[in-house]
Amino acid sequence: MSAWLLPDHIADVLPSEARHIEELRRQLLDTARGYGCELVMPPLLEHLESLLTGTGEALDLQTFKLVDQLSGRTLGLRADTTPQVARIDAHLLNRAGVTRLCYCGPVLHTRPDRPHATREPLQFGAEIYGHAGLEADLEVLLLGLDCLKAAGVGDVTVDLADARIVRSLFAGAPVDAQVLRDVHAALAAKDAPALVQLTRSFPAASREGLAALVNLYGDAKMLDEARRVLPPMPAIAQALDQLASIGAQVPGATVSYDLADLRGYAYYSGIRFAVYTPGASDALVRGGRYDEVGAVFGRNRPAAGFSLDVKALVGVLPKRPLRAAIRAPWGQEPALREAIARLRGEGETVVCMLPGHEGDLDEFQCDRQLVADGARWVVRPL
Amino acid sequence: MSAWLLPDHIADVLPSEARHIEELRRQLLDTARGYGCELVMPPLLEHLESLLTGTGEALDLQTFKLVDQLSGRTLGLRADTTPQVARIDAHLLNRAGVTRLCYCGPVLHTRPDRPHATREPLQFGAEIYGHAGLEADLEVLLLGLDCLKAAGVGDVTVDLADARIVRSLFAGAPVDAQVLRDVHAALAAKDAPALVQLTRSFPAASREGLAALVNLYGDAKMLDEARRVLPPMPAIAQALDQLASIGAQVPGATVSYDLADLRGYAYYSGIRFAVYTPGASDALVRGGRYDEVGAVFGRNRPAAGFSLDVKALVGVLPKRPLRAAIRAPWGQEPALREAIARLRGEGETVVCMLPGHEGDLDEFQCDRQLVADGARWVVRPL
Repeated sequence: MSAWLLPDHIADVLPSEARHIEELRRQLLDTARGYGCELVMPPLLEHLESLLTGTGEALDLQTFKLVDQLSGRTLGLRADTTPQVARIDAHLLNRAGVTRLCYCGPVLHTRPDRPHATREPLQFGAEIYGHAGLEADLEVLLLGLDCLKAAGVGDVTVDLADARIVRSLFAGAPVDAQVLRDVHAALAAKDAPALVQLTRSFPAASREGLAALVNLYGDAKMLDEARRVLPPMPAIAQALDQLASIGAQVPGATVSYDLADLRGYAYYSGIRFAVYTPGASDALVRGGRYDEVGAVFGRNRPAAGFSLDVKALVGVLPKRPLRAAIRAPWGQEPALREAIARLRGEGETVVCMLPGHEGDLDEFQCDRQLVADGARWVVRPL
Repeated sequence: MSAWLLPDHIADVLPSEARHIEELRRQLLDTARGYGCELVMPPLLEHLESLLTGTGEALDLQTFKLVDQLSGRTLGLRADTTPQVARIDAHLLNRAGVTRLCYCGPVLHTRPDRPHATREPLQFGAEIYGHAGLEADLEVLLLGLDCLKAAGVGDVTVDLADARIVRSLFAGAPVDAQVLRDVHAALAAKDAPALVQLTRSFPAASREGLAALVNLYGDAKMLDEARRVLPPMPAIAQALDQLASIGAQVPGATVSYDLADLRGYAYYSGIRFAVYTPGASDALVRGGRYDEVGAVFGRNRPAAGFSLDVKALVGVLPKRPLRAAIRAPWGQEPALREAIARLRGEGETVVCMLPGHEGDLDEFQCDRQLVADGARWVVRPL
């Protein structure tokens, strides 16, 4: 195999796409900063148990492992940044009040999430710690939508779900990890016969509630149907009220609900959302409430947040034009160097034609040139 | 061990430092862009042989290895981005003329380079491919200095060296890899007795030349001394002339030379530079010419470039003040939401006080507040 072939689902990002990603990265971080989110940069490598405790099997299978030669311990390459940010909130910042944090950096996956997915997403996310109220859920969703707007995504659909509903329906049911996974899979596939089979031995309320979930998707009217057919449990009633409340406060987006949707990491504990746009095969943004994710670090703070893959986001946006540059001759005369430095200081790209390459045309798109006009250097159209 | 302890030489970057790193990152990339460098983003993971072929043992020892479960092959986590950028130039861009590229991303090291070094530097760098002349060496050095200036580093010293001098002095000497390493170590330590011992069996010109190197450091006057005492080999004469020429064209920096200096990766093939500033224990910037680094990818293009660790750079700079934010009440009234959106659009940070946390003072430094003035919302000092 040639030395320049990359592993499957791993790719170089070449200039025009890299420039777009960098521009988006700045817009996303600036949007989060506008909401008061402070930037943190957790490491790529951590002790495996810090990365994985309490986060579920899916994340474990996604995580590359290696050995630290300094300590002999097993390290993991982060596959998701959220548990790290929970650790930072719990231990390093250790504030009593609300803390808003954001991050943007690569994560690595042992296997692609979907057939054409990269194994190296560039994960951007924002999170609010220390607030258990619905206002924090709403703020992270609005921030997520503002991020997409800043990126130039126009038409969006918000799918709302809630982790409390399925969880409540399992109450009293004899569930081991394998059954739990199988029920989740049957719900995700809306596979009613499999669900009936799997929940045979469950109490009637669980069995009937889970069976009903398969049909509980649609717009806000579905929530009334859900109130009728789901068992009258306080957690379910609260979840349905909160879903209706959040859904009514999302401006400019189509809102739909899917009470059987459980996709994403196991750490979600309340409302969950996914934002879709036409032309993208998967959700662009996923988020919600995950109050328990910091518990392993000894500080079980309320938390809500979202994340997105900047590389996937670029994939659904039209290409942005390159801002054309200015060609300049190579030379060390002070007047030329000063003219070049001044233009660069104004944000222009000035490409000096290195000796022997004055005729090169393929390097950078130039629409102007710097030419001598007597003792002065002036910019002229090319 | 607690779940929140990180591996040695691995650290979280907390908000004030992260903000500074992000600001520097943008300034560095914008400075490189001003020179016409196009951004590329090579992956963190590659097949080990792509990362390491032709780059020497030091990089191999620094590289974390793991197994790709998709292919069963060994992957490496990049410890240096330069070989990847050479691969991109050679195969993906495949241009005939000059190509200027830049990058900024994390690299990982199995062991720290120095006692207090991080194992996860944030490597920024810029490179010029396709030009063998001294002008490219000079341009990358000037760009490196401009980057430090943009970052706010004032006082710098440029150390110049050249990989061709030691390499030429080995001509005709019976050298295996171990002897080469030992001689390099003796030169780095300026250990004249060890050098005499190691080079006993070398031809006289080699032996005497290598011995002379130990004393060949200092300002430009030393180069005359070098011309006298080193053997009259064309490659050495050319290196000395080019060192003098480059050194004379660096504005506003103290220049010194050290002909025995061989630090850094094994791929250097010509002039090398290191930029120091008072208060930093190691060079902030290292670079030079490495014409052979792309050879393994089948396209041996001339190349010159430099890199730096953005985290190390932040460590030598004074802290930057946080731009204070505006506090706003929580609420969904359209006039309030519009006022907040407008301020955020102007680049302000507006922190909405979530219900129950109106008295929180530790979240973000706010010096103004958004208050209702009749039907309007106005910003007032806090």
